[in-house]
Amino acid sequence: MLIIGERINATRKSINKAIEKKDVKFIQQEAIKQVQCGAEFLDVNCGINIKDELDNMEWLVKIVQEVINVPLVIDSPNANALERGLMFHKGKPIINSVTAEEKRYEKILPLVKKYNTSVIALTIDEKGMPKTAEERFNIAKKIVRITTEYGILPEDVFFDPLVRPISTEPEQVKEFLESLRLIKTLPQVKTICGLSNVSYGLPNRSLLNSIFIAIALGYGLDSAIIDPTDKKMISAIKTAEALLGKDEYCLSYITAYREGKV
Amino acid sequence: MLIIGERINATRKSINKAIEKKDVKFIQQEAIKQVQCGAEFLDVNCGINIKDELDNMEWLVKIVQEVINVPLVIDSPNANALERGLMFHKGKPIINSVTAEEKRYEKILPLVKKYNTSVIALTIDEKGMPKTAEERFNIAKKIVRITTEYGILPEDVFFDPLVRPISTEPEQVKEFLESLRLIKTLPQVKTICGLSNVSYGLPNRSLLNSIFIAIALGYGLDSAIIDPTDKKMISAIKTAEALLGKDEYCLSYITAYREGKV
Repeated sequence: MLIIGERINATRKSINKAIEKKDVKFIQQEAIKQVQCGAEFLDVNCGINIKDELDNMEWLVKIVQEVINVPLVIDSPNANALERGLMFHKGKPIINSVTAEEKRYEKILPLVKKYNTSVIALTIDEKGMPKTAEERFNIAKKIVRITTEYGILPEDVFFDPLVRPISTEPEQVKEFLESLRLIKTLPQVKTICGLSNVSYGLPNRSLLNSIFIAIALGYGLDSAIIDPTDKKMISAIKTAEALLGKDEYCLSYITAYREGKV
Repeated sequence: MLIIGERINATRKSINKAIEKKDVKFIQQEAIKQVQCGAEFLDVNCGINIKDELDNMEWLVKIVQEVINVPLVIDSPNANALERGLMFHKGKPIINSVTAEEKRYEKILPLVKKYNTSVIALTIDEKGMPKTAEERFNIAKKIVRITTEYGILPEDVFFDPLVRPISTEPEQVKEFLESLRLIKTLPQVKTICGLSNVSYGLPNRSLLNSIFIAIALGYGLDSAIIDPTDKKMISAIKTAEALLGKDEYCLSYITAYREGKV
């Protein structure tokens, strides 16, 4: 599974402060730590400080890529901030994110094409966030039609069917899992999710998140935006991959065991 | 999920010795411990000591049911030993097990009917153990036809699609999971599995088994024959049940958290 490190996100207070103070060392340490723990991409989000967002994104992309050699997930609701990040990115990044809303995709998809990126597509349309697996699948099919019109290959689209908290919506994980299964019937597309929502409001969230990702892997999840320094999470991923035949001769599992990671 | 305690099994040296010595206290402690840890059924298997098997089964059933009030899974390849256990059992037991092999089911299914039990049906036929999900599903459908002919209700049949070690057959878990999904499309039947096989030959088997059961729960596993004293296993089950909407308001999860079980 493709592991995307989530830690460089301005919704975290320490990161927000580091961006404000232009604390290069703090951000770079966060980047290095995540890659050492197994992240193959790093998400970078510079927050919603409208005045400085473009400059902050440029700064983040530059200083992070100075110290690590994995590509980034450029994360912003603002197309201009995304473009500023893309202009300075080395390698093939992922844009986070597009939806099936026309106002959003008509700004984002030209960037995907122009900068030859991949893109995370949330299964949201003008009616908002869907509840059932079938609704999520229908939006995904619509997005495949639209991205194809823009000349974007299906293998560059990562669908996020949006997981919701089990504390308030106990039926939602089942719908989410079934939507993963349905979306994986579309040729070549990939699936992705952020996790932190699923365990909102409950104790021992790290356990809930790690068991959730194992179950989701069983349903065809290809990648996840997680905290790679969370040992329970990495252990669950390595173990699920071994179980699901995604780890030849279980070599990666056995190595992780010897290194004390599972 | 229905948790069946696996510990009273003569393939374990300590149990075999206790049966030979007729060590009532040792066996009864194993029974009590498993129920305290959450087992809702206990499997009892007295081994293949041909000479004494019938008497041993009678003894086991009697002494176990003296101290706990959950029903038993009467476990033997020998129909006569099964019947001896059934004669002395209080409540509704489960017979472990039948297959689609005529020589086996013509001896076992009359006992299911006569003693009004449930039965574990392994997806094995005259050709042996199947490899693909489709083959397992076809055998399950055949067993439903046969058990129906014997007047056995589908809700009394627990299908075990037989999990195999990932160390030697890495693709088998995927086939197993898909077969769970297919079998659950049959009305009212239940699914079950023993776990210990899946992690055979690998380190940290308790972790592999616990992640495996979480993934299997996501695919519709209804019950499992496990060691309920394994805390990692119970923690994974409670957590997966909360995630999959099988735990109203996550109350069981929250209680388990307060008791230090997750």
